[in-house]
Amino acid sequence: MLGLMMDRPMLVSSLLTFAARYHGDTEIVTQTVEGPIHRYTYRDAESRSRRVAKLLGSLGIGLGDRIGTLAWNTHRHLELYYGVSGCGAVCHTVNPRLFEDQLVYIVNHAQDRIVFFDLSFAPLVAKLQPRCPGVEHWVALAATVPAETPFAKAYETLLEGVDDVYTWPEFDENTASSLCYTSGTTGNPKGVLYSHRSTVLHGYAFALPDAGNLSAKDTVLPVVPMFHANAWSLPYSVPLVGAKLVLPGPRLDGASLVKLFADEKVTLAAGVPTVWQMLLAELHATGAKLPHFKRTAIGGSACPPAMIRAFHDIGVDVVHAWGMTETSPVGTICTEKAKHTELSTEARLALKGKQGRPLFGVDLEILDDDGKPLPHDGVAFGNLVIKGYWVVDRYLGQEHTALRDGWFHTGDVATIDPDGYMQITDRSKDVIKSGGEWISSVDLENVAMGCPGVAMAAAIGIAHPKWDERPLLVVQRKPDATLTRDDVLGFLDGKIAKWWTPDDVVFVDAIPLTATGKMWKLKLRESFRDYRLPGA
Amino acid sequence: MLGLMMDRPMLVSSLLTFAARYHGDTEIVTQTVEGPIHRYTYRDAESRSRRVAKLLGSLGIGLGDRIGTLAWNTHRHLELYYGVSGCGAVCHTVNPRLFEDQLVYIVNHAQDRIVFFDLSFAPLVAKLQPRCPGVEHWVALAATVPAETPFAKAYETLLEGVDDVYTWPEFDENTASSLCYTSGTTGNPKGVLYSHRSTVLHGYAFALPDAGNLSAKDTVLPVVPMFHANAWSLPYSVPLVGAKLVLPGPRLDGASLVKLFADEKVTLAAGVPTVWQMLLAELHATGAKLPHFKRTAIGGSACPPAMIRAFHDIGVDVVHAWGMTETSPVGTICTEKAKHTELSTEARLALKGKQGRPLFGVDLEILDDDGKPLPHDGVAFGNLVIKGYWVVDRYLGQEHTALRDGWFHTGDVATIDPDGYMQITDRSKDVIKSGGEWISSVDLENVAMGCPGVAMAAAIGIAHPKWDERPLLVVQRKPDATLTRDDVLGFLDGKIAKWWTPDDVVFVDAIPLTATGKMWKLKLRESFRDYRLPGA
Repeated sequence: MLGLMMDRPMLVSSLLTFAARYHGDTEIVTQTVEGPIHRYTYRDAESRSRRVAKLLGSLGIGLGDRIGTLAWNTHRHLELYYGVSGCGAVCHTVNPRLFEDQLVYIVNHAQDRIVFFDLSFAPLVAKLQPRCPGVEHWVALAATVPAETPFAKAYETLLEGVDDVYTWPEFDENTASSLCYTSGTTGNPKGVLYSHRSTVLHGYAFALPDAGNLSAKDTVLPVVPMFHANAWSLPYSVPLVGAKLVLPGPRLDGASLVKLFADEKVTLAAGVPTVWQMLLAELHATGAKLPHFKRTAIGGSACPPAMIRAFHDIGVDVVHAWGMTETSPVGTICTEKAKHTELSTEARLALKGKQGRPLFGVDLEILDDDGKPLPHDGVAFGNLVIKGYWVVDRYLGQEHTALRDGWFHTGDVATIDPDGYMQITDRSKDVIKSGGEWISSVDLENVAMGCPGVAMAAAIGIAHPKWDERPLLVVQRKPDATLTRDDVLGFLDGKIAKWWTPDDVVFVDAIPLTATGKMWKLKLRESFRDYRLPGA
Repeated sequence: MLGLMMDRPMLVSSLLTFAARYHGDTEIVTQTVEGPIHRYTYRDAESRSRRVAKLLGSLGIGLGDRIGTLAWNTHRHLELYYGVSGCGAVCHTVNPRLFEDQLVYIVNHAQDRIVFFDLSFAPLVAKLQPRCPGVEHWVALAATVPAETPFAKAYETLLEGVDDVYTWPEFDENTASSLCYTSGTTGNPKGVLYSHRSTVLHGYAFALPDAGNLSAKDTVLPVVPMFHANAWSLPYSVPLVGAKLVLPGPRLDGASLVKLFADEKVTLAAGVPTVWQMLLAELHATGAKLPHFKRTAIGGSACPPAMIRAFHDIGVDVVHAWGMTETSPVGTICTEKAKHTELSTEARLALKGKQGRPLFGVDLEILDDDGKPLPHDGVAFGNLVIKGYWVVDRYLGQEHTALRDGWFHTGDVATIDPDGYMQITDRSKDVIKSGGEWISSVDLENVAMGCPGVAMAAAIGIAHPKWDERPLLVVQRKPDATLTRDDVLGFLDGKIAKWWTPDDVVFVDAIPLTATGKMWKLKLRESFRDYRLPGA
């Protein structure tokens, strides 16, 4: 027996039409690529998105066609999110920080028919164009075509040619809405194809009080790029609640961000630790204050405890989050339960170091190497697996499911405590295996990051004749710091188990980063492949 | 092109398994029908719900079978919500406050195969049983069978006969999960059949910051009965976030509620204005304080401004809500936008008097009698229509949709302002039509309710030879009050348009109420059908 409720598909276009209808004069503010601040409203954004959809139709784009973007967080990128998905095509957000070969692979693999790009990427596009013959149109997100890409068209000129008389189509909610490739450091990137349904459900969940806690009273600034895993749902969940949206464009340095936060009275932001390090440094250097800034979601890689404390000290609540491209991306968020509100500040900050608990809609488990569930006691750690409404089933172009026994295997190693809080102890491949025991490279790094003078620290396993592997700590000093190997080892002493102590500490000018700003451990392991530990 | 995300149905059972898994030791506290306080956890509730599901299976209940409940808000009723819907049957919550003939009609029309009832309703069930021959089992929600219903079985005895080894089945999310009949004052009640999908989506939406704002830090007490429109989603949305749940059983008097609120440190409650009047009176009379109580959702009928202010004065934020059985029930909720936070207290309280704006998932419109949309200017009022994920399409047993042009017609008359806030001005049938202009009976009542000595006031239209209709105000005095017709008219003077002034004021011992605690205008109009207005 079926229920007798209205049969209405969950569609991405509904999010923006809702915002236009009930929050029509709420602002979307962009720090543009060209320079000036651009302001308009949800009503304007929805009207322009209809023009984008109509334009795509006039270019012969139909249901399921892939449309690429190489773009920063701007109002035009938002219009593409809605115009492309809304008309039934697939918004393929390409990460411009990838290497040229990867970009070529991705655009060709996705069979993008049009690619929209920001002016910053014109030199890159000039190189891509000859290698991506399937792309029918290259469109510069600007009023004029840049000199480097004479083959391109200008977005504003194209939009002038269409009006906004357009009705958003209705279709199956399982239709693909957007596409994002994993930034795997090994092998070719793999495409994750989100649906309208998964996107809307993920948007609802991310807006919940124990997640993003998004309300029409908020002003939200996603620093996390819109080309990376849907910017953690913010381009969807912010219109879902009718909050003001502030888009930082390409300027992600500390000074630009602090100015934008202050000018627009941002209440909530989201980004990776490396960005927040720059913002905190700027606040520290200038003494600037951000009185409206109340909460930040931090993910992408584990947030160092020192950063959680630094934000706490300026009145900003850190909401630690974990997820991946394959999970839309939000898998867990670390917010407190009633039982935690009476803990000491220290204990509460310690809890915030965990990646958090799942929202309704996803389910987690930790498995041993035989696939057997391990106890949720906060101590046992195993391979983290996940399932849920917004978790991938299989990758684009692959025949077989990526799941095993219904679970997606994340490649992370984690604990789950009795209250359901998950903590990543490591990536499966980064764990340092010493004498049959596992050392968490992440835990070691987190302690080392607290050492004065350390800007960044990476722990990697180095082959050892007796112990199989032993930890080497690779340190990037702060610009003005002069610390030595013994300073670092002295700092670690007593803060970690004796047998975790790195067998050596080496200093480098810069720890290599991946395209998404994470420490590139694979590269480091390659660089230090022949490193000989003292005494080994 | 379809997305490649996991295909997992939204099922009601997932809400409770989620709570048991990630909030396993969070409490559910019940003021039982028998008397004592009962405490257990989500882990216990989920285990007992599995036993209920297994019990139903052993009684031959299958997908789509209807199971009736005549029950207060208790842990056992919660177990039925999940055990019945979870196994694929339909949880039919019957409103025990209806008249016997209506109850007989509803139970027979729904073809309930089992009816579970609280001890309070044993005398009622003794009368229903001979008239509902299709009911195969009557089960008393207790450890023993009451004397009045020797034909019944005892719930606890039945549950002792089954274990909890049971796997929640997966099925189409559009399967019916629960059933609730409208409490129409004319004609037979009509059944609204909710689906698992509509219930889960409504649960997500109600938990949002701009709605119930539910978090794992909350302790939530639904005063609104679980036999009335899913208790505004709380039995679903509270487990969805893992908050503590407090169920008041049959004791809804001011003193019992104040004790329960205080003992359990309730942070959030939901109910109809009549209940809050009792609670406020108790707080006023005893001087008791409820320091943890922060927010209350008020709906079911318009919340008088005086009540919004009374709650404001004791630090409780009133969240005005509107909906109906046909809308699951939440249609709109009145929470502020950023632009309102700088208004004066007076202006903010005035805004709270509106029924509010829709959450993402529903859409509203106001239409004139020709079906043409009216401006959203906060002034024009028309027939309120609604559509959305959790809005009815057709009633149980009816062949045809209840919609017109895709909209459900609510029978309310309302305005919508430019910010999307809806305000009910009247029920279509209660509007007083004077000389071609409409007088809102609700507005008139709200002003009259503020008059000292008035316990309750109803405005109804009385036939008038010249004006078609003119307003008559029917007043129920407070117990100790002695106010007169002239006192009331004097109070109204200057607070309403001159031509809205009632042609007469009459006093009654008690204004009749409907089964759901609203003023029964139809009954009043009947009583005063032959009333002759002075000068008419």
